[in-house]
Amino acid sequence: MLDFQYKNGTKIIFGKGKENEVGVHVKEHTNKVLLHHPGGILEELGVIDRVKKSLDASGVAYVELSGVVPNPRLSLVYKGIEICKKEDIDFVLAVGGGSVIDSAKAIGMGVVYDGDVWDFFSGKAEPKSALKVATVLTIPGSGSEMSESSIISNEELELKSGVDSSVIVPVFSILNPEMCQTLPKSLLAAGVADIMSHLLERYFTPTKGLYLSDYLIEGGMKSIIEVGQKLVENPGDYNLCSEFMWTATVAHNGMIDAGRASDWASHRIEHEISAFYDVTHGAGMAIIFPAWMKYVMSHDVDRFHRMATHVFGLSPEGKDKEALALEGISAMEDFFRSLGLKITLTEAGIPCDRFEEMASKAVGGNGHVGRFKEITKEDIVKILELAK
Amino acid sequence: MLDFQYKNGTKIIFGKGKENEVGVHVKEHTNKVLLHHPGGILEELGVIDRVKKSLDASGVAYVELSGVVPNPRLSLVYKGIEICKKEDIDFVLAVGGGSVIDSAKAIGMGVVYDGDVWDFFSGKAEPKSALKVATVLTIPGSGSEMSESSIISNEELELKSGVDSSVIVPVFSILNPEMCQTLPKSLLAAGVADIMSHLLERYFTPTKGLYLSDYLIEGGMKSIIEVGQKLVENPGDYNLCSEFMWTATVAHNGMIDAGRASDWASHRIEHEISAFYDVTHGAGMAIIFPAWMKYVMSHDVDRFHRMATHVFGLSPEGKDKEALALEGISAMEDFFRSLGLKITLTEAGIPCDRFEEMASKAVGGNGHVGRFKEITKEDIVKILELAK
Repeated sequence: MLDFQYKNGTKIIFGKGKENEVGVHVKEHTNKVLLHHPGGILEELGVIDRVKKSLDASGVAYVELSGVVPNPRLSLVYKGIEICKKEDIDFVLAVGGGSVIDSAKAIGMGVVYDGDVWDFFSGKAEPKSALKVATVLTIPGSGSEMSESSIISNEELELKSGVDSSVIVPVFSILNPEMCQTLPKSLLAAGVADIMSHLLERYFTPTKGLYLSDYLIEGGMKSIIEVGQKLVENPGDYNLCSEFMWTATVAHNGMIDAGRASDWASHRIEHEISAFYDVTHGAGMAIIFPAWMKYVMSHDVDRFHRMATHVFGLSPEGKDKEALALEGISAMEDFFRSLGLKITLTEAGIPCDRFEEMASKAVGGNGHVGRFKEITKEDIVKILELAK
Repeated sequence: MLDFQYKNGTKIIFGKGKENEVGVHVKEHTNKVLLHHPGGILEELGVIDRVKKSLDASGVAYVELSGVVPNPRLSLVYKGIEICKKEDIDFVLAVGGGSVIDSAKAIGMGVVYDGDVWDFFSGKAEPKSALKVATVLTIPGSGSEMSESSIISNEELELKSGVDSSVIVPVFSILNPEMCQTLPKSLLAAGVADIMSHLLERYFTPTKGLYLSDYLIEGGMKSIIEVGQKLVENPGDYNLCSEFMWTATVAHNGMIDAGRASDWASHRIEHEISAFYDVTHGAGMAIIFPAWMKYVMSHDVDRFHRMATHVFGLSPEGKDKEALALEGISAMEDFFRSLGLKITLTEAGIPCDRFEEMASKAVGGNGHVGRFKEITKEDIVKILELAK
């Protein structure tokens, strides 16, 4: 195990109808919020109205900023910063999925910073503080409701980039599994793939001699495989929605992987696909991860062998190590397919003619990404070829 | 899954020599602490000196209160409360294992309360606030370094009783695995059994339809079985000590069992054994849990069957469900034995002539304990008979 520091003080309020209590929880922190949401379907479903009613009942004022889209845009973040400064707002309430929460976190950092908030995403500066952010989660997957991450798309630069900082961990998050009961199958599937990708990034580690975190991550994977497959068959099942929602949070809040390094190369590659073609992140991960696994497998066959046996329960009898490791990767592909996801770029209708450019942006200034296996721009082009 | 609220803001500082930074972390909160510890071996090993040196270096004043013993006494808690009031201290720094931390938490509650701190343990009152507590952990097992529990022994009443409250969750805990490298095998074994008992209390639940938390708890059990057995063979191994230390924290900080009810009857029974005969808690749990399991197995054979297959990897082929469930319980007994622990009262030299009295105190005013299976005083006497 590696040395580490861990702290995550997000209060999780989990259960049926809990968004109706949001005003009470906000009131513990402030009297006025920026109410940040996507609009559209959440308004139609009455979610936004329920939140407003609760804020009203607790005497919390709000200024609304809707219009967040998947792969949330820097332009809307700037708008949110402007509103908060003008309206003297010190708290951002995000109602939505990972995109809305990430946008809220970026706004929170930008309001208390003198320069351009993109400085944090370009690596030019580190956030020292931020407005408090809280969330009412409506689409699980990103884990942003209890994470220190925010990922924003810069439309002008065609770049998607992230910040990790303890100052943006939400103060509370309301998780009502009923929100998932009306999600379309494609969003459920993308959410499940997103969760699996967060677990896989942590599973593939250069750290040796691990026990607890390996077993916890494997437990998370086994659970989301069972829950994910059942959920796409029974999308309205409340209990499956509960498991789905909470697994997304646990997969990404930093506790199950304390003391180990994780990889994140696949995320960096997928972010470019999302940035170039506006693909749903989870759907992109289901394409990139299998290709990445095939490309790096020889680096540590034992790890892939363990995934095959521990996660998929494949029997090692009569097979050599490589063969079983490859079977494990196939099982992961089958899992993604069973959710209705595409596992190649071509199947998903994603163009394959800008690999060099995407690879360049994915490695950024460092020239390499990944910690399980450090890979370069050339490696990424080969991985994208495998993903064709 | 059940509705739940979860929040745990303890900052974990994990790694070699981290106690030498304790002053810096304390200084973020206060300038003066009650330095609470057992004395004895921790002084001989130089741990207390290192902590004092770090406090001095950060300009943190301290008043010392040593002498905490296993099954920490109410009388010393009273003394700590008196000192804090007299010296105007607003922060308790516990250096030690679960006993010291629990004592520190009790002091913290008592200082800000007008009545007798035992009111919280007898259920007469609920704590509304407490002094901040932080810890330098030296003996893993209790999980108190990141839990909301404190358990105190009232010598006069021959009672051991607990409080659960969010106000006593430590603000930070320093976990240096080197502390475990010098622990005697008996304390390692008791710590491992304590961890296992915390996982078992959570595993045996009346909540149905669980996925993630079942897999996480099973992961914790598989890990501590492997780590525990290797550790008693190689007590000085730093990496095994790391896993041991962190597993103790994760097993009891509330995240892996969010959304499910847990049992705790075995703990209530064991607390009476500790209160009557001053037995090390973990050693007592290794005796009570197997007896409890045998007594309640018929209530939900499937759960025991799952433990046998998922945790111990026992093959169900050619066996009926009950037989395999019993095999799982035997495997758990073998595990405790492999650590060098006794698994009957007689083996451990504990008298067997006050069962009625112990059972009465264990059920307390309610007349029953346990949530997986509600048991009465009469049941407890039978469980103690099975533990003979």
